[in-house]
Amino acid sequence: MRELKPSTNWRNKLHEIIYEADTPIGKWFDIVLFALIIISVILVMLESVQEIDAKYHNTLLACEWVVTIFFTIEYIARLISIKKPLKYALSFYGIIDFISTIPLYISYFFVGSQVLLAVRALRLLRIFRILKLVQFLGEASQLKNALKASRNKIAVFIYTVLILSVIMGTLMYWIESDASGFTSIPRAIYWAIVTLTTVGYGDIAPQTPIGQLIATIVMILGYGIIAVPTGIVTSEFTKQGAGAKPKIHLNTQACTSCSKEGHRDDATHCYNCGSKLHG
Amino acid sequence: MRELKPSTNWRNKLHEIIYEADTPIGKWFDIVLFALIIISVILVMLESVQEIDAKYHNTLLACEWVVTIFFTIEYIARLISIKKPLKYALSFYGIIDFISTIPLYISYFFVGSQVLLAVRALRLLRIFRILKLVQFLGEASQLKNALKASRNKIAVFIYTVLILSVIMGTLMYWIESDASGFTSIPRAIYWAIVTLTTVGYGDIAPQTPIGQLIATIVMILGYGIIAVPTGIVTSEFTKQGAGAKPKIHLNTQACTSCSKEGHRDDATHCYNCGSKLHG
Amino acid sequence: MRELKPSTNWRNKLHEIIYEADTPIGKWFDIVLFALIIISVILVMLESVQEIDAKYHNTLLACEWVVTIFFTIEYIARLISIKKPLKYALSFYGIIDFISTIPLYISYFFVGSQVLLAVRALRLLRIFRILKLVQFLGEASQLKNALKASRNKIAVFIYTVLILSVIMGTLMYWIESDASGFTSIPRAIYWAIVTLTTVGYGDIAPQTPIGQLIATIVMILGYGIIAVPTGIVTSEFTKQGAGAKPKIHLNTQACTSCSKEGHRDDATHCYNCGSKLHG
Amino acid sequence: MRELKPSTNWRNKLHEIIYEADTPIGKWFDIVLFALIIISVILVMLESVQEIDAKYHNTLLACEWVVTIFFTIEYIARLISIKKPLKYALSFYGIIDFISTIPLYISYFFVGSQVLLAVRALRLLRIFRILKLVQFLGEASQLKNALKASRNKIAVFIYTVLILSVIMGTLMYWIESDASGFTSIPRAIYWAIVTLTTVGYGDIAPQTPIGQLIATIVMILGYGIIAVPTGIVTSEFTKQGAGAKPKIHLNTQACTSCSKEGHRDDATHCYNCGSKLHG
Repeated sequence: MRELKPSTNWRNKLHEIIYEADTPIGKWFDIVLFALIIISVILVMLESVQEIDAKYHNTLLACEWVVTIFFTIEYIARLISIKKPLKYALSFYGIIDFISTIPLYISYFFVGSQVLLAVRALRLLRIFRILKLVQFLGEASQLKNALKASRNKIAVFIYTVLILSVIMGTLMYWIESDASGFTSIPRAIYWAIVTLTTVGYGDIAPQTPIGQLIATIVMILGYGIIAVPTGIVTSEFTKQGAGAKPKIHLNTQACTSCSKEGHRDDATHCYNCGSKLHG
Repeated sequence: MRELKPSTNWRNKLHEIIYEADTPIGKWFDIVLFALIIISVILVMLESVQEIDAKYHNTLLACEWVVTIFFTIEYIARLISIKKPLKYALSFYGIIDFISTIPLYISYFFVGSQVLLAVRALRLLRIFRILKLVQFLGEASQLKNALKASRNKIAVFIYTVLILSVIMGTLMYWIESDASGFTSIPRAIYWAIVTLTTVGYGDIAPQTPIGQLIATIVMILGYGIIAVPTGIVTSEFTKQGAGAKPKIHLNTQACTSCSKEGHRDDATHCYNCGSKLHG
Repeated sequence: MRELKPSTNWRNKLHEIIYEADTPIGKWFDIVLFALIIISVILVMLESVQEIDAKYHNTLLACEWVVTIFFTIEYIARLISIKKPLKYALSFYGIIDFISTIPLYISYFFVGSQVLLAVRALRLLRIFRILKLVQFLGEASQLKNALKASRNKIAVFIYTVLILSVIMGTLMYWIESDASGFTSIPRAIYWAIVTLTTVGYGDIAPQTPIGQLIATIVMILGYGIIAVPTGIVTSEFTKQGAGAKPKIHLNTQACTSCSKEGHRDDATHCYNCGSKLHG
Repeated sequence: MRELKPSTNWRNKLHEIIYEADTPIGKWFDIVLFALIIISVILVMLESVQEIDAKYHNTLLACEWVVTIFFTIEYIARLISIKKPLKYALSFYGIIDFISTIPLYISYFFVGSQVLLAVRALRLLRIFRILKLVQFLGEASQLKNALKASRNKIAVFIYTVLILSVIMGTLMYWIESDASGFTSIPRAIYWAIVTLTTVGYGDIAPQTPIGQLIATIVMILGYGIIAVPTGIVTSEFTKQGAGAKPKIHLNTQACTSCSKEGHRDDATHCYNCGSKLHG
C-alpha cells in the first residue's frame, strides 16, 4: 500500500525480468539468454576445431568478446537486483555464471585458463528453468519424482554393478595376459564396466579361451542386469500414472429392483431406477 | 442420383484404384506398387556395389528404366486423377514420388544426380498405408498413440541426454590428449553420445586413468538412463492395455437433488439419493 | 479289454519310452538323449579348434562314431515305434534328427559334408520337451504366450527398424567416403543396423563431421527405440501376471452394526458380526 | 535369570560386536571393517599398476601388512566368539575371510600366491550386511524378491540365449573365413554372445555379405530379446509395488452353515449367511 522508493522500484523491475518468467519481458529475457548460452557453447566448440580456429580465429574471438560482455552485464545485473547478492554469488548457478564469464578476462594473465570454458556447458541446465514456462513442467517433474522415488533402489543397483565389476575385473587381470590390454587391475575393472554396460569399445578384449568364457558371463550378466533399473523406473512410472486419476471402483452388486450392475462402491441408491440398494 | 460425365467417371475410377485400398483392384495396385518400390530400392543398393555394377551394369540400367517408366506413369496418373493436383504435388508423399522418379532423366544433364536416388528409400514408408488393409492397423496405431502420449516426456529425456553429452564431452576434451582421438569438442561430444547410448565403436576411447574413470561414469549413466524412455513407453502401453477392458466413464454432472457428482454416463438416477437425473 | 498282439505291445512300449516322458524310464531316456546331444555339440566344437583337433583327432573321431551310432539306433527306433513313420521323417524334428545322424556316413563320399554338423546344434531345442517334465513348463509357456500376443506389434516394430536402417544407410553412403568403410549401400545399411541396435563394432565408423552428426541421430533413435519392444513385452507380461490369480475386490462399505470395512463385493452379511449389509 | 560365567559373558560381548549390528559399537565395528576392506582392495589394485608399484613398493607392502594383521585378529576373534567355530570356518564368508587373510603369509613359501588376493574383492559383499543397518534393507530385499520370483523365467531366457548363440555361432563358423576372426566354433559362439548382448567389441566381425546379413539378424534378435528379462523383472516389480498396499488374504475355509469359501483371514462371521465361523 505504501509507496516504494524509485530505486527499489527499479531494482524490483529488474529482478522480475531476470529472475522471474511470468511476465512477457521476463520470458523474452530467458529466451534471449538461453540463445546466447547456446551460442557461447557453440563458440567454445568451434574454437576447439583446429581447422576452423586457424581460419576464423579473429571472428570467433570477436563473438567471444560480445558474449562475454553480455554475460558480464547479466552477472552484474543479477548481483544488483537481488536482495542477498552474496547468497546468489555462492549458489550453484551463481558460481557457474561467474566461471562462465571470466575466462576471457583472465586469459591475459594465465595460460590455459580456457579450461574454465568447459564450465559454460553447465549453463545449459538453465533450460529447465525456461521449460517451466511451458507445458513441459509436468512431464519433467513426473520424471524427477519417479527417479527420486526409486533413488535408493538405484543406489543398491549401482553398488551391485560396481562390486561385480571389481570382482570380475580382478579375476580377468589374473587370467588374461598384458598383451590383451589387461595391464593392471584398474584397467581390468574399466574393461568390466565397459562390458557390463554393453558399451564394448573393443580396445581391451580377452584373447584366451578361459578369459572369453568369463567375458561371456559378464556380458550375459550385464544384458540381464539392465532389466533391474528399467523395472524399477517403469514400476514407479506405472504407479504414478495410475495414481494420477481418481480411482472409483464399480462393484458387481445388482440392484434389487432393476438388476442393473456396476454401482459405485459408495452408492446407496441404484443409478438406474433410484431404489435403495441392499448390499 | 444425377448421371456423371464419362470423363469424371473414368477419373473417379482411377482415383479409387490409386488412392484407396478398399476395392480388390485398389489392394492389388498397392501391393504391386510396393513390390516395385522394394525392387527400385534393391536396384539402387546393387548399383552401389562396385563388383555387381561392373558386371551387370546394363541389366541394372534396363531394370532401372522399367521402374522409372512405371513410376512416371504412376506419378502422372496420380496428378490426373486427383481433384487438386497441386496439393498432391506439394505434399510430403508428392515430393518424394517426384524425386524418386526424375534421377534417371536428369542424369543426362547433371552429373551426380544419383544422390536423389537415396530419397527413393522414403517411398518404403508407403507400407504403412498398405498395412492399413490388414490386421496390423490396430497394432500400428496403438504404437503410435503410446509414442504420441509420451512425446513430451521423451523430449525432456532427449534434451537431458544431449546436455549431458555436451558437458561430458567438453570435460573429456580437456582431460584426454589428441592421441586418443579427442581432437576437438564436437568429436568429444560425438564420443560421449556413442558411449551414453552404449553403442561403443571404440574408434575414440579414453587412454588416461582419469579419462577412463569419467568414461566409466558416462557408461553407468547411459546404462541407467535407458530405463527412462523404457519406463515412459511401458507405462503408456500398460495404461492403454488396461483401457482395453470396457471403460465406464464417470461424468462430472451434479445431481439436482443432492449435488453429488460422479455418475456413470448411462445413469438415469442419482446413485446417492435416488432422484431422477436430468442429463 | 482285448489282448494286443505281442509285437504291437512291444512297439507301444518303445513309443512310450521315446516319445513320452511321463514314465520314469521315459524321463531317463530323455535325459540320456539330451546329455548325448550336448556331448555331440561339444565334439563338433572341439573338432573346429585346430590345436585340439591336431592332438586328439583319433579320440574325437571315436567319440563321434559312438554318438553317431547311438543317434542311428535312436532314429531307427523312432521310425519303427511310431504309427506314421513318414510323418515323423518329414517333420521339423525328424529332418533335424536325420541330418544330425548322417554327416559321418557321407563324409566318405562327399568332402565338406561336415557343414551338416552345424544342424546338430538345433537338436538342443529338444530341451524344451524335457523341460516340460519339470516346473519350467509354466514359465516357458508364459514367455511364449506373452511373445505370441505381442507378435503383430513386434512385426510392425521390426519393419520400422529395417525401413529406418535402409533410409539412414542410403543417406550415409552418399555422405561418407569409401575410406570410412561405407563402400556400398548394403554395407551402409549393415552399419545402420549395427548402430541402431547399439552393438557398435567399430569396423565401419563415420569420419566426417556431418556423418558423425547423422550417426548421433541414429544412435539416439536406437537408444530410444529399444523402449518399444520392451514396453510391448512388459505390458503383456503385466497383463498376464495380473490375470493369473482370481481377483476378488474388497469394497470400502462399512457394516451398519459394527462399522467394519473391507467386505467382498458380493457379500450380503458382515464378515465380522454377521448382521445383514445394507449397501 | 541365572548368572553367566565371566568368560562366556566376555565372549558374548565380542559376538555381539562382531556378528551383530544393532548396538552402536557393533555398527562402528562393521563400518571400520568395511573401510579396511575397501582399503585392502585398493591396495591390491595399486600394486597391480606397474608404475605405482615400482615407486611405492615399500609403502604399499607396509599398508598390506597392517591390513593383514587386522584381518588376522578379526578372523581369530570370529573363531573364538562363535559357538560353532568350525561351521563359520567352512561357511561361504568364513572361507573368503580366511583366503583374504593368508596371501601375505604364504607369499614367502609359494610364488604366485598373490592370485588369492583377487578373492579379497568378494569381501566387499559384506556391504549388504552393513546396509541392513540403514534404510536400504527394504529396497535390497525388494530387489531380491523380484529377482527370486522371476528366477525360473530368467533361467529359461538364459538357456534360450545360449542355444541361439550356439546355433548362430556354428552357422557363422561355416560361413565366415578365418580371416574375419571366426577361427573355431567356440570363438564364433563367443562372437554370437558379444553380438546378441549388443556389447559388440569388434575384434571379431563378419566380412562377407552373407555373414553380415546373418549378423544383422543376430543383432535385431538381441535388440529385441532384451525386452524379455526387462519385461519379467518389471512385471514382478509392478506386482510387488501393487502388493505394497495392505494385503488382505482370503482363505479357503468353508462356512459350516452355507459352505461358502473365500472369507477374510480375520473374519469371524460368514459374509454370506452371517453365521459364526469356527476358525
